[in-house]
Amino acid sequence: MSESCYITQKPIIIQDVVDRVVRPEAGAVNTFIGTVREFTKGKQTLYLEYQAYESMAVKKMEEICTEIKRRWPDAEPSIAHRVGRLEITDVAVVIAVSTPHRAESYEASRYAIERMKEIVPIWKKEHWHDGAKWIGDQKERQPGVPAKEDIQ
Amino acid sequence: MSESCYITQKPIIIQDVVDRVVRPEAGAVNTFIGTVREFTKGKQTLYLEYQAYESMAVKKMEEICTEIKRRWPDAEPSIAHRVGRLEITDVAVVIAVSTPHRAESYEASRYAIERMKEIVPIWKKEHWHDGAKWIGDQKERQPGVPAKEDIQ
Repeated sequence: MSESCYITQKPIIIQDVVDRVVRPEAGAVNTFIGTVREFTKGKQTLYLEYQAYESMAVKKMEEICTEIKRRWPDAEPSIAHRVGRLEITDVAVVIAVSTPHRAESYEASRYAIERMKEIVPIWKKEHWHDGAKWIGDQKERQPGVPAKEDIQ
Repeated sequence: MSESCYITQKPIIIQDVVDRVVRPEAGAVNTFIGTVREFTKGKQTLYLEYQAYESMAVKKMEEICTEIKRRWPDAEPSIAHRVGRLEITDVAVVIAVSTPHRAESYEASRYAIERMKEIVPIWKKEHWHDGAKWIGDQKERQPGVPAKEDIQ
């Protein structure tokens, strides 16, 4: 199996991400799938565009996997993020974490998505009827992680 | 799309369960996948057999979905369980819950698997090198839910 973290322009195959973590030692896989929602605070989204500072984003995703293995030594994580234009209900991100028992799979998966929002340089542009806006997914700035305007 | 809860003898297609809950109102899908683990407390499992009191099991799975919608009114759940002989790493159960935001998808998915263990009449027979044993998955007995020995 190839890398556990990747960015793709094509639709993410959920089974493919899950396959990267399924193993005899695991009895549980928790998967988080982020999909494009039509309405946010009453405003209709037509479609989204995702853009990544790709090499840095993969590096940060791998960093999250390392953090997970430190906190949950028996966990095996995989993270895939899609970039480009995504329509309503399209899958933007898939996180899969396998663990021997289920409690840890939930905890580690939740940790992964929160960290994704914090440190991975992926931005989305929301397109509405009356305009569009780039929205940073990162809550905090980390050394070495540029803001979107820095790489354009 | 067909029923949100089902039991099958064939391998569960994860995408199929996820497809039942993806919708424009949702931005998050949490999926729990239970797989056959090789070692439990140091003892090697060769394979498992799952058996269900099928009509009652589906009814109880639907009951769990109703409970979820009562607790998380914006959630859409789907549950699939496989029966028959399963090899190591095979998928026994898939739960998918979609919600507008991610926190609720984790909570409702976790609720679903805990309730599955509690009230759904599905049993597994562990096969080891030196024997085999039926193991009830239910922690509590509910009125109308028979023990395995009652239906054999």
